[in-house]
Amino acid sequence: MTVRIGVIGGGQLARMMIAPAVELGLEPRVLAEESGMAASLAAVAVGDYHDEETVLAFAREVDVLTFDHEHVPQPVLRALVAAGVAVHPGPDALQYAQDKLLMRAKLADLGLPQPDWAAVTRADDLQAFLDGHGGRAVVKTPRGGYDGKGVRVVSAAVEAADWFAALSEDANGGALLVEELVDFRRELAQQVARRPSGEIAVYPVVETVQRDGVCAEVVAPAPGAVGRVADEARRVGVAVAEGLGVTGMLAVELFETSDERLLVNELAMRPHNSGHWTQDGVITGQFEQHLRAVADLPLGSTEPTAAWSVMINILGGPADAAMTDRLVAAMAEHPRAKIHTYGKAPRPGRKVGHVTVAAAELDDAAYEARAAAAAFD
Amino acid sequence: MTVRIGVIGGGQLARMMIAPAVELGLEPRVLAEESGMAASLAAVAVGDYHDEETVLAFAREVDVLTFDHEHVPQPVLRALVAAGVAVHPGPDALQYAQDKLLMRAKLADLGLPQPDWAAVTRADDLQAFLDGHGGRAVVKTPRGGYDGKGVRVVSAAVEAADWFAALSEDANGGALLVEELVDFRRELAQQVARRPSGEIAVYPVVETVQRDGVCAEVVAPAPGAVGRVADEARRVGVAVAEGLGVTGMLAVELFETSDERLLVNELAMRPHNSGHWTQDGVITGQFEQHLRAVADLPLGSTEPTAAWSVMINILGGPADAAMTDRLVAAMAEHPRAKIHTYGKAPRPGRKVGHVTVAAAELDDAAYEARAAAAAFD
Repeated sequence: MTVRIGVIGGGQLARMMIAPAVELGLEPRVLAEESGMAASLAAVAVGDYHDEETVLAFAREVDVLTFDHEHVPQPVLRALVAAGVAVHPGPDALQYAQDKLLMRAKLADLGLPQPDWAAVTRADDLQAFLDGHGGRAVVKTPRGGYDGKGVRVVSAAVEAADWFAALSEDANGGALLVEELVDFRRELAQQVARRPSGEIAVYPVVETVQRDGVCAEVVAPAPGAVGRVADEARRVGVAVAEGLGVTGMLAVELFETSDERLLVNELAMRPHNSGHWTQDGVITGQFEQHLRAVADLPLGSTEPTAAWSVMINILGGPADAAMTDRLVAAMAEHPRAKIHTYGKAPRPGRKVGHVTVAAAELDDAAYEARAAAAAFD
Repeated sequence: MTVRIGVIGGGQLARMMIAPAVELGLEPRVLAEESGMAASLAAVAVGDYHDEETVLAFAREVDVLTFDHEHVPQPVLRALVAAGVAVHPGPDALQYAQDKLLMRAKLADLGLPQPDWAAVTRADDLQAFLDGHGGRAVVKTPRGGYDGKGVRVVSAAVEAADWFAALSEDANGGALLVEELVDFRRELAQQVARRPSGEIAVYPVVETVQRDGVCAEVVAPAPGAVGRVADEARRVGVAVAEGLGVTGMLAVELFETSDERLLVNELAMRPHNSGHWTQDGVITGQFEQHLRAVADLPLGSTEPTAAWSVMINILGGPADAAMTDRLVAAMAEHPRAKIHTYGKAPRPGRKVGHVTVAAAELDDAAYEARAAAAAFD
């Protein structure tokens, strides 16, 4: 009896689930937005994940449903659950990844550390928040933002005037999220896997380096994050997974402040860019772990296989004709680098792959990974 | 421009090439013997690899052709080369993996160490060999043997009477291969990857443990095989790869004699069971390396990621209904074990998967791998 795992969304996260699914004897199926997407190797149906009938029909042929992204609408998710489909993570958890205001309120209920925040419906409220927080703050649209989109640092309420205008046109009303501009030393990410039956596995906390709002580099584990910082990251990660009822992989993005507090920045309830290093640097990579978790199978070891791992994203450049030449150059110069490509047409700034290097010394891993990724520039 | 790699044969070796092909951005296609085989995840054509037209049609849609096994007939291979297809390994190399008499003669030409051997066409010749080698020897059919089939230990020529009778019915004539029964201490395997342009990568020599003529367990690296033994294994592996013009992965099975000589037992020109540990224990696993080599891409590092790795084959048992239960039990008790399944119906003695464990201590790796594999018994 093979467990059939349906993945909604045909991007690189679905693509990277396929290989571990096959090794474990699970049967992956993908509902992609269009044909020819990254995950097109698996049995692929093409359809719109906003459409309840499309998703229900796809779900009837699988044993467990999971996701490449968090965008499936709540009514569709609720209809799946009502139809008896095993959905992981479920709608009750996913709502917190879909709506940043819901997330902030829930984390506050749980007493978890986060930046000061407020829900603002009018420019006056935003200005009041700015006045109370040194004149600058981060404004976010609660829904639909990713990779820096839907996020704006403002020093006057007028800078969010267009978003307020859009709110007033929305029949549902709604509010914007405003957060204090955290004086952070660096950004960390804590990954946790959780099974429906409750078992939890915790990965080492990592440091993430963002460029232009996009994850550029991950160092694992986060340098110097032993003892209190690692313990606190683990505590917060487990508390979010349990408190929000997350099943599958969870990534908690954290600010480490200059006074050594950890504050929750964002959540992702799926395999996450901050965990790509686990493919080559941990006994159980995040894609295998996500499959184990959503299928409610025993979780694998999260022990690293090397002292240090460094992951660098490969972004598409202006010219793509020489992509193969660049790949060959990276392979030739960096035989220790693990190169992962997503089968995507390169466009400027688009993530088209990543490189990881695991090594005994951090400087070796970082040098090699950066040099291999630079071959694609 | 994506490199399309066609694999003839739809077994587990083809299956395990698919994931690294996708990560590297290569496009794998498989010509399987029947539908529903192990490698059915990739784009699969179904057809008979003995049929020249079938194979030529398959080859027209790919850039490089390689193999899951060594059974494609020489006339088909030669027709492919004549049609301009890039075939790796090529027919000139593959003939030595297909015919053990050709292999013995070639290794003799190269001055490489091997057991005493002879080509025998009559029972009298075999008896003479037996008389000269202590009364016992190994008789092999030169073609078509694998996993102990086509191999017989005899102490009298009459024990091979049926094979001599079959020879006399073969219009091509032919001979049997007889080899001295080597007084070996243990069996080793040396893997080497070689590109058409000549670059070579050498893996650590491993110890293989056979049961009933089938590989049961691999310990990597071979305990105590440092210095002279490792150097000699490397020398022989490289000499075979270069001397026979092998492209792709080569496995050289070796006897280590009680007087510390290494003698070539068998050759395999493809990823090999003795190298399954590399998937989880080496920076570049043998399946990725084979693809790099046959596509003439730069080879990856063969550096182990742990001090020790142990691989145990999972064989099908009499009852298969509880396969999923066994998998869950193995996962639950052994979170460090990497479990690989082949999607094959379990039959007694059939290889249906394998387990590897990498660890800092050999006893840990061996205990954990054996215990995880035992969950499938």
